[in-house]
Amino acid sequence: MVINTKLSFAFLLFSLFFLSVTFSLAVANVDPELQLCKSQCRTYHEFSHRQRRECEQKCEDYHGQNHGEGEGEGGGGSRIVLNSNTDPEKQLQQCQKQCERQREQQKEQCRRQCQDTYERQRGEEGKGGGGQSGEKDEQGRQQEQGQEQEQEQGQEQQEQNPYVFQDQHYTASLETNEGRIKILQRFHQRSRLLRGLKNYRFVYLEANPQTFVLPAHLDAEAVVYVASGRGTLSLVSQGKRESFNIKQGDIVRIRAGTTIYMINRDKNKKLRIAKLLQPVALPDEFQPFYGPAGENPQSFYRAFSEELLSSALKVEQDRVQRVIKQQNKGVIVKASEQQIQALSQREESGMFPFPFGSTESKRVFNLLSKEPSISNRYGRLHEADANEFQQLQDMDIAVSYSNITKGSMEGPFFNTRATKIAVVVKGEGYMEMACPHVSQQQQGQGQSTGEQRREQQQQSASPHYQRLSSPLKRGMLFVVPAGHPLIVVAGNNRNLEIVCFDVNAENNRRESLAGDKNIVNALEKEAKELAFSIPAREVDEVFAKQNEWWFFPGPRGGHAYA
Amino acid sequence: MVINTKLSFAFLLFSLFFLSVTFSLAVANVDPELQLCKSQCRTYHEFSHRQRRECEQKCEDYHGQNHGEGEGEGGGGSRIVLNSNTDPEKQLQQCQKQCERQREQQKEQCRRQCQDTYERQRGEEGKGGGGQSGEKDEQGRQQEQGQEQEQEQGQEQQEQNPYVFQDQHYTASLETNEGRIKILQRFHQRSRLLRGLKNYRFVYLEANPQTFVLPAHLDAEAVVYVASGRGTLSLVSQGKRESFNIKQGDIVRIRAGTTIYMINRDKNKKLRIAKLLQPVALPDEFQPFYGPAGENPQSFYRAFSEELLSSALKVEQDRVQRVIKQQNKGVIVKASEQQIQALSQREESGMFPFPFGSTESKRVFNLLSKEPSISNRYGRLHEADANEFQQLQDMDIAVSYSNITKGSMEGPFFNTRATKIAVVVKGEGYMEMACPHVSQQQQGQGQSTGEQRREQQQQSASPHYQRLSSPLKRGMLFVVPAGHPLIVVAGNNRNLEIVCFDVNAENNRRESLAGDKNIVNALEKEAKELAFSIPAREVDEVFAKQNEWWFFPGPRGGHAYA
Amino acid sequence: MVINTKLSFAFLLFSLFFLSVTFSLAVANVDPELQLCKSQCRTYHEFSHRQRRECEQKCEDYHGQNHGEGEGEGGGGSRIVLNSNTDPEKQLQQCQKQCERQREQQKEQCRRQCQDTYERQRGEEGKGGGGQSGEKDEQGRQQEQGQEQEQEQGQEQQEQNPYVFQDQHYTASLETNEGRIKILQRFHQRSRLLRGLKNYRFVYLEANPQTFVLPAHLDAEAVVYVASGRGTLSLVSQGKRESFNIKQGDIVRIRAGTTIYMINRDKNKKLRIAKLLQPVALPDEFQPFYGPAGENPQSFYRAFSEELLSSALKVEQDRVQRVIKQQNKGVIVKASEQQIQALSQREESGMFPFPFGSTESKRVFNLLSKEPSISNRYGRLHEADANEFQQLQDMDIAVSYSNITKGSMEGPFFNTRATKIAVVVKGEGYMEMACPHVSQQQQGQGQSTGEQRREQQQQSASPHYQRLSSPLKRGMLFVVPAGHPLIVVAGNNRNLEIVCFDVNAENNRRESLAGDKNIVNALEKEAKELAFSIPAREVDEVFAKQNEWWFFPGPRGGHAYA
Ligand SMILES: [Cu+2]
Ligand SMILES: [Cu+2]
Ligand SMILES: [Cu+2]
Repeated sequence: MVINTKLSFAFLLFSLFFLSVTFSLAVANVDPELQLCKSQCRTYHEFSHRQRRECEQKCEDYHGQNHGEGEGEGGGGSRIVLNSNTDPEKQLQQCQKQCERQREQQKEQCRRQCQDTYERQRGEEGKGGGGQSGEKDEQGRQQEQGQEQEQEQGQEQQEQNPYVFQDQHYTASLETNEGRIKILQRFHQRSRLLRGLKNYRFVYLEANPQTFVLPAHLDAEAVVYVASGRGTLSLVSQGKRESFNIKQGDIVRIRAGTTIYMINRDKNKKLRIAKLLQPVALPDEFQPFYGPAGENPQSFYRAFSEELLSSALKVEQDRVQRVIKQQNKGVIVKASEQQIQALSQREESGMFPFPFGSTESKRVFNLLSKEPSISNRYGRLHEADANEFQQLQDMDIAVSYSNITKGSMEGPFFNTRATKIAVVVKGEGYMEMACPHVSQQQQGQGQSTGEQRREQQQQSASPHYQRLSSPLKRGMLFVVPAGHPLIVVAGNNRNLEIVCFDVNAENNRRESLAGDKNIVNALEKEAKELAFSIPAREVDEVFAKQNEWWFFPGPRGGHAYA
Repeated sequence: MVINTKLSFAFLLFSLFFLSVTFSLAVANVDPELQLCKSQCRTYHEFSHRQRRECEQKCEDYHGQNHGEGEGEGGGGSRIVLNSNTDPEKQLQQCQKQCERQREQQKEQCRRQCQDTYERQRGEEGKGGGGQSGEKDEQGRQQEQGQEQEQEQGQEQQEQNPYVFQDQHYTASLETNEGRIKILQRFHQRSRLLRGLKNYRFVYLEANPQTFVLPAHLDAEAVVYVASGRGTLSLVSQGKRESFNIKQGDIVRIRAGTTIYMINRDKNKKLRIAKLLQPVALPDEFQPFYGPAGENPQSFYRAFSEELLSSALKVEQDRVQRVIKQQNKGVIVKASEQQIQALSQREESGMFPFPFGSTESKRVFNLLSKEPSISNRYGRLHEADANEFQQLQDMDIAVSYSNITKGSMEGPFFNTRATKIAVVVKGEGYMEMACPHVSQQQQGQGQSTGEQRREQQQQSASPHYQRLSSPLKRGMLFVVPAGHPLIVVAGNNRNLEIVCFDVNAENNRRESLAGDKNIVNALEKEAKELAFSIPAREVDEVFAKQNEWWFFPGPRGGHAYA
Repeated sequence: MVINTKLSFAFLLFSLFFLSVTFSLAVANVDPELQLCKSQCRTYHEFSHRQRRECEQKCEDYHGQNHGEGEGEGGGGSRIVLNSNTDPEKQLQQCQKQCERQREQQKEQCRRQCQDTYERQRGEEGKGGGGQSGEKDEQGRQQEQGQEQEQEQGQEQQEQNPYVFQDQHYTASLETNEGRIKILQRFHQRSRLLRGLKNYRFVYLEANPQTFVLPAHLDAEAVVYVASGRGTLSLVSQGKRESFNIKQGDIVRIRAGTTIYMINRDKNKKLRIAKLLQPVALPDEFQPFYGPAGENPQSFYRAFSEELLSSALKVEQDRVQRVIKQQNKGVIVKASEQQIQALSQREESGMFPFPFGSTESKRVFNLLSKEPSISNRYGRLHEADANEFQQLQDMDIAVSYSNITKGSMEGPFFNTRATKIAVVVKGEGYMEMACPHVSQQQQGQGQSTGEQRREQQQQSASPHYQRLSSPLKRGMLFVVPAGHPLIVVAGNNRNLEIVCFDVNAENNRRESLAGDKNIVNALEKEAKELAFSIPAREVDEVFAKQNEWWFFPGPRGGHAYA
């Protein structure tokens, strides 16, 4: 569910071409997201008039008002007609039929677009609406400016906000007919400001319905979060196998060197998995090792001399070689109904922890079926750290899930020790973060060398906090370093759901900067006076009003103070 | 108390200008420190005649014999007349009155100089003497060669001895009317030989009497040592506040992300604080985050959109903005008598640990009121590690305080695992350290590139140990890597007091290289013979004579063996 | 026993010159090692015809067929005649007598060659044979192409296989008349692929019979393995000394800053020691600190001013200086019979753990006298981790010893978390490893910069596994990163003995890839089908045949499947 925005964008561009251009324009004109986006442009105080205009232009580009200009790009590509107002399953079949008419190399992309659209329509976005409204909703945010231009924007954005990752920040991508695995670039390669995460890597996996993901071990410790779908996961170590069903919200800790494989048991939905890895052999690099495989993926058995392998297995060389050269369908392959049946587990071990097992023995932890730590009408927060799921201990990671009610917001708050890697799994909205690092770099006028910049970063003991802001959409990832104040706002149309991997979790505390228990309210009267340089009464009138905690109504949530 | 040497030097230069030049020269001519300094020049066997002469010249420069040449520099600056033989408090008032006549931008510097002199005169340097003798003592070490020349010397010294830090090695400095915060450059930026400390930073804070230091949280773990003064410290986390009085010798552990603020309760003395930080978000960088603040320091609340802040606090935008833009006096502000009263704590929680609290619950640990681990007439050593003050555990740091009697010395000794960051808090003297690294670099003739040097550093398995020597003065900091033998000598006029942060404290042991329990005495007779290649009896006659331990009489401490 | 191959090669070159060239050629022509080597050239599928020919040429060079060309080199050097068919002890004496006739600077090298040959002849290589057969065996692998050519080959090999270290990869070497200490280059200096080991260093020490290794402390934690010989080790800390006898197979943990010295008690055999170090002051660098010493090695006491030392020791300066300038024989010195006697311990504390001591109190752990964890007719594996020898805990290291029966092999297997540093202590053979990193670099055509390479390393999510293969000989060291499948094959003439330091030992598991409990057998029938893309029955026919475990008959071990 995570990182498929770009492709679905492209797909929907084509759809729009067959639908009414006028209609989509009409919708877009009243799009509150667009207005929000533009209003953000005006809040960058540092922006010149020209910069502000450019910013607004980007909002418009992003929200697809001028998609008419995009048709040239779609000209040579694949065109697919989507018939709205029909049953999603039927639509999916129709769509995939059309794919057969595509040229060979575009077939797979086409099929994936069908699948994506189907899932959107099924209301996976949490709207529960029918086909048409789902479609209408897409229309507002379809258009894309093509790969090249987007990457340029990416470069630009990188300078301003190196904490946000999108499709173009995945360096490696393995695509098969039945799914894909994408590897996010090294965090510290993106920016020196992320060098605190240099021992972590992020991977996103997406498997089509009724598929098998081939066995492999990694030279990395891993925490896996199931973002959507239903599957069965198998872990092999020391000649023993453990299998258990997994479903949305499940967290699994996979130890380095454990051979892992899985199936997507669902007949319609994709299995989507987000993985945080901590490499063990090299600090910032990992490799998958496929053993039971063949030509593609290559089996590592093939690296050994035929005579050694033959001796080790006590079998003639020919027979060994025949077995390890057959597979050529890639890492994710289609499985038959019976194979899926056979590989599925009866029990949902994620839901029912072993009756007499210690916490340690539990292999799967479902984050969503756990009581939320915070819950009000504006959102809820589910958390799992090493106390709740002991297997997270040695990686020093906590996993949390925020569901922010549409039109509401989470924060302002900060983490005292942990650096947050947040993945948007559903919905959209935006975030604002206060960062003293970026602004110092910008003060350096951007012409300084890396070395100079490093010097400047601590030149002033009295920092300026730059607002870093970014729209959030499904599949985006952002990093919030320890200590940095953050607000996340859900769009007005749907809830915003975010899964966070918190690194350096031990002794981390969340600190609220508004509402109940905020840090200002804890000061003595005199400290308030001295800190704000105004009478304490005025401070209280601002900081002691809000009586909610953590999640608050958003700026358009019915409250209009301004 | 730590790092104000340069300014007070400058100040005393001016004083001297009004006192008798001849007098100070007369004093300097018999200065034993100067003789000592010069004698050190002769002990560098590698020095050429020219180098030796330069070395001696530096001694003379440093000890102020040719200060007459410095007057040109003082010409355009501020001149302050100090009337000796008066009550220090009166003198302080007079001095500050004179500051009012200064041009605006020099007023603050002037006031600080007054304060510094006052504290010197008050006998804080441990001499307990009256105004005049204190002054006479200054005269011997007044003169400085102006900022430029000092930095040059600094560069030079850096090449020879990258382990010693002075004023010019602070990269960031925040000065307000009421105090200052100085951030030491990254250790590993100074020299590759300090890359073992790349995850640590050092900060020095100095707050004037009756002031308030604004609340902030850091993205760093911290250990704080109170070098002088009396204050009250407040820590805010999870909406709760803890406050406790602090005084000289107190150690406080401050967790990352905890909001901290403090007052200087004293009416006359500065509050001086040395902090060792371990950043949590970036390996070698930290930032302060000021929330309850305004324009200067900037509040991080100002980074958020007005509409978000307004929603979060449930208050109109205007009122919010009014509160977070008022403060403009900087990080350290003057507090009224009543404010100080209200923010002070009744109990000195540092002195009396909680009656039923576990070690964990104790927030403040006073190093000086603890029994010394070693004490004789030549000095005493107070230590606190994780066993005594459990809060030091996770940072793996120990803190110690050495008070070396005037004319005596500590060591030779080495730490088995810990690298020592030593800060001179009072007095003066010098140190000698045996280092196999620097000598190898010098053998490379200084023209090799960084890469070449790195190669050379391990070229020989049989090392040469270079003597690294440095005068020590209040405010200086020096690093002693694990395994390096060290001697610290107190000057003949006053005790030398040093506070050490020992990094990698777990399983560290101090090993004595002379006196009781030295490593040579533990060898068997045959091992002595084989190691020294002389009869064991002769070895014993040298290594088994000293019956003191750790602290010994210094080279002029009444013993004249040579 | 570890790293003396090059010199003994050179020596044997000379011997051969006096023996029959024809004879050695005849032997070499049927050398199975050579055939094996050449056959490996043919298994590199990527090799062009020219490359294959070069590879075979190298085999021939290595195995000494064309040694006639080497004589020019030996011309100016020392020539020694070895009379075979005599008592080894007598031969040693004769040999050393001949050394006396050499020019002064070649005497020591000569003597060492005598010693090396003697030890070979004594059958230390595990063959137990007499003089002649021992010699014949050498002849097959004598010849070397001289230092220059070897280093060139080293460079080349480095590109292809950065995991294997030989003589030329030691950067620092301290040679005395009585032994030597060699320091391996930094792992990460060899290749970026070894940057996971950047906090570890490897040292090899070899002391002649009846010698004393001078006391020193290191700024590094250390684990020591005794590869051959019998000695007594002394540790001094806090003024106390502990001494205990050590012998082949002993593991000792030496804490940073502990002063250590030792004797070789044996009258004929060398004491050989392999050390893995973890520096504590600098991440990848350590230094020895010699205190009880003199001019060579230099005592660190000499770095201090004479007057300080005199005061610290309470002795006149002259007497101090006389004691610390005498030693000039270097780090390893000859000891008399009586000195050896006096310094030896009565009890073998390594063999008999203290009767009432906890595991912690045990200082020496003998790996070989422990029950093997795996043992069959093809080999045996002895292991010690923190559970068995608690002192290994904080360094997170395990030590193991593999004795692979001649003609047999260990693996295929991989370590889940640990990276293996393997040292060949006896015998010869070869290894094959599957590595996805090297092949990616090669695909980059070798012209890319470091930065580009780094990018490429993760470009593909579906890796290609390159076979990395290397002959193994006594004294070679190789690294196997976590997750990498490995096979080690013993030559047909003698057992191959390997000592491994496994870094990141905690939670590490060994995973077998063939025989009992291999990962393929643990898959369900359907998973086998889907992974290999052939019927499960055919998979089982290949992977379920072998019923041995871990050690298997080698490719020529009597089984001829091909
Ligand atoms: Cu930042
Ligand atoms: Cu050094
Ligand atoms: Cu590899």
